[in-house]
Amino acid sequence: FLKLVLRVWKFLKKAWDVAVDDPRKVIHCLKVGLALSVVSLFYYMRPLYQGVGGNAMWAIMTVVVVFEHTVGATLAKCINRGAGTFLAGSLGVGVNWVAGHSREFEPIILGASVFFLASAATFSRFIPSVKQRFDYGAMIFILTFSLVSVSGYRVDKLLDLAQQRLSTIAIGASMCIIITMLVCPIWAGQDLHVLVTRNMDKLANSLDGCVAEYFEDSTSPSDKEEESSKKLQGYKCVLNSKATEESLANFAIWEPAHGRFSFRHPWVQYLKVGAAMRNCGYCIEALNGCIAINSETQAPQFVKNHLSEVCMRLSSHSSNVLKELAQMTKSMKKSTKIDFAIGEMNGAVLDLQDALKSLPTQLTPPPQTNTAVLAPTAVPLIEVAPLVTVASLLIEIAS
Amino acid sequence: FLKLVLRVWKFLKKAWDVAVDDPRKVIHCLKVGLALSVVSLFYYMRPLYQGVGGNAMWAIMTVVVVFEHTVGATLAKCINRGAGTFLAGSLGVGVNWVAGHSREFEPIILGASVFFLASAATFSRFIPSVKQRFDYGAMIFILTFSLVSVSGYRVDKLLDLAQQRLSTIAIGASMCIIITMLVCPIWAGQDLHVLVTRNMDKLANSLDGCVAEYFEDSTSPSDKEEESSKKLQGYKCVLNSKATEESLANFAIWEPAHGRFSFRHPWVQYLKVGAAMRNCGYCIEALNGCIAINSETQAPQFVKNHLSEVCMRLSSHSSNVLKELAQMTKSMKKSTKIDFAIGEMNGAVLDLQDALKSLPTQLTPPPQTNTAVLAPTAVPLIEVAPLVTVASLLIEIAS
Repeated sequence: FLKLVLRVWKFLKKAWDVAVDDPRKVIHCLKVGLALSVVSLFYYMRPLYQGVGGNAMWAIMTVVVVFEHTVGATLAKCINRGAGTFLAGSLGVGVNWVAGHSREFEPIILGASVFFLASAATFSRFIPSVKQRFDYGAMIFILTFSLVSVSGYRVDKLLDLAQQRLSTIAIGASMCIIITMLVCPIWAGQDLHVLVTRNMDKLANSLDGCVAEYFEDSTSPSDKEEESSKKLQGYKCVLNSKATEESLANFAIWEPAHGRFSFRHPWVQYLKVGAAMRNCGYCIEALNGCIAINSETQAPQFVKNHLSEVCMRLSSHSSNVLKELAQMTKSMKKSTKIDFAIGEMNGAVLDLQDALKSLPTQLTPPPQTNTAVLAPTAVPLIEVAPLVTVASLLIEIAS
Repeated sequence: FLKLVLRVWKFLKKAWDVAVDDPRKVIHCLKVGLALSVVSLFYYMRPLYQGVGGNAMWAIMTVVVVFEHTVGATLAKCINRGAGTFLAGSLGVGVNWVAGHSREFEPIILGASVFFLASAATFSRFIPSVKQRFDYGAMIFILTFSLVSVSGYRVDKLLDLAQQRLSTIAIGASMCIIITMLVCPIWAGQDLHVLVTRNMDKLANSLDGCVAEYFEDSTSPSDKEEESSKKLQGYKCVLNSKATEESLANFAIWEPAHGRFSFRHPWVQYLKVGAAMRNCGYCIEALNGCIAINSETQAPQFVKNHLSEVCMRLSSHSSNVLKELAQMTKSMKKSTKIDFAIGEMNGAVLDLQDALKSLPTQLTPPPQTNTAVLAPTAVPLIEVAPLVTVASLLIEIAS
């Protein structure tokens, strides 16, 4: 019994952590509750309401299914639902009319049409470009079409029914849109923007921390080390944020102008920047791996000393570039400092290459060495270059 | 107009590619069509059927919403839907009973209960452990509860209604389960297994191709090169397959015993193997980056010659280990060759380290060099080690 209490307690604690971590999630929950109770009360009070089978159901169902965390997702689902219902409804009425005129084949025609259209719509959900935007719409299409063709009413009654259903869905959907956009809206575009800039900062910090940890004397106090290792792990977030970025960008496309973003903001550019950042992240990962391996087989101290200054300078310059880029993306203005910072970084890259070339001559006295280990530092820095170009592209388009 | 035709043609061609690429998708579509037309004909023929508002709707809706590509996903949704409906239904009847006994506060009690339960259920969907398994169930819970509390019937009639709804949902769900499991079943577990083993092979090929490309003379014919560059890109699939792996593993948990997999197959181990493979992939990515940069600043030929033999041997040994592992995972038997292959790989790692150490002494005559470039080859190979341990762990559990 105590075990059960402990598990419940753990679960509640986890839930509390989620709430503290992002209070907007709590607000979203309250919004859903609000929308639902408004819709249900609306129908509960109205005298023209009759039973569960009536129209109220469709409004409530629409709210439950359509209400999503971000404005973009809600809008996308509303539009998909509306379009799917309308298309399938009109098609269903047509098929019913045809079937009604051929009395004896009616079940066969209806069954065959359901079979073929359902298969075709299901297949269309596998096509990437459809899946990305109209997945939900295709599902609603199948649902509505089967319902209409099974209903077996005469056409004039069907039209009446369809009109009622569309209007209730419209009520539910407009309720969702109003509440999601007016009460503390959560914009997918804004989220994407923040995610990308925060990831840039994290990359810069990881890069700094990684190089510093290698060259630093290990005499620093341990509590500072813990914090720095936390910083160091920041690049892992960058590696894992691909799916989030894609879904956010996908929703952001549906959003109207908000804040500093216009309607046709180039969201796809954010994905490109994200991909470039992930490339940087891979390099940092490899760098980290080298450091982990070589903490055992230490390179001789004097080699380290020879290279440490150049490497540190290079890493600080390139993390400066990243930070500057993050700042630039945040303010959406092209800053003049960035060209200067890039120039400095490129200079540092050349310096490191020179230092590496001059290394073997100095090494000849003691032939054992792990110089090779140091080389990978050069790699992420050189790979930063494409990121820079992509980002500046974005900035030019955005501003 | 010609443009429109061209676009439609392109779209159809893409759809055809999808179909050819994975014929099981087409079969899945036909299965959905079959299930839907069986259910709708079933209801269409039965005399006890009355109008759209009737029960047929719920069976059809269940089929449309619940039928998924893999068996595991379908089962998970069926169970979620059943449990969510049952829980919310009984709770809703209870709340209705309480509200019915306090005449004047009825709308307030109902509205408040909808608000609080909907908020709580929406919040629970944000908690990772709930989201992973019961996301759909929570949604159905909200939906059913609001529908029941809005219906405003007396309790005895509600019980009748609830029983009808549950039975129609059961009909729809059992139809889905029967069709998905008997007609060409697509098992998530099987898919996951194949994905992981294929990714291992891809990694091995990329590693081979990458190292070979660097050391090989560039006199090979261009068509062979194209194929090899395709192989080389294989590791990118590994990097991007995280989300797929996770969702497959998540569905596989729900599946009963099938093929060579028992009910409680350790699917989580596959995720660990996937993570280890992704680490290897990062290394290959870094390696690739080095090669791209150094195709301009070529290392002197004699350095290459000195190292090429050792590096090639190391890469072929370690890709052998990967291939052996893939073979082992495929057959789910611990092979005796693997220990031998690992031993050979470790020997090759030591050889490479020796070669790197002896390099500077040989280099002294011409002091310019890019030896550093070659070092990263050592990294992925050393990083293969954790993969090996994880995989052998899996094999021991599985067999």
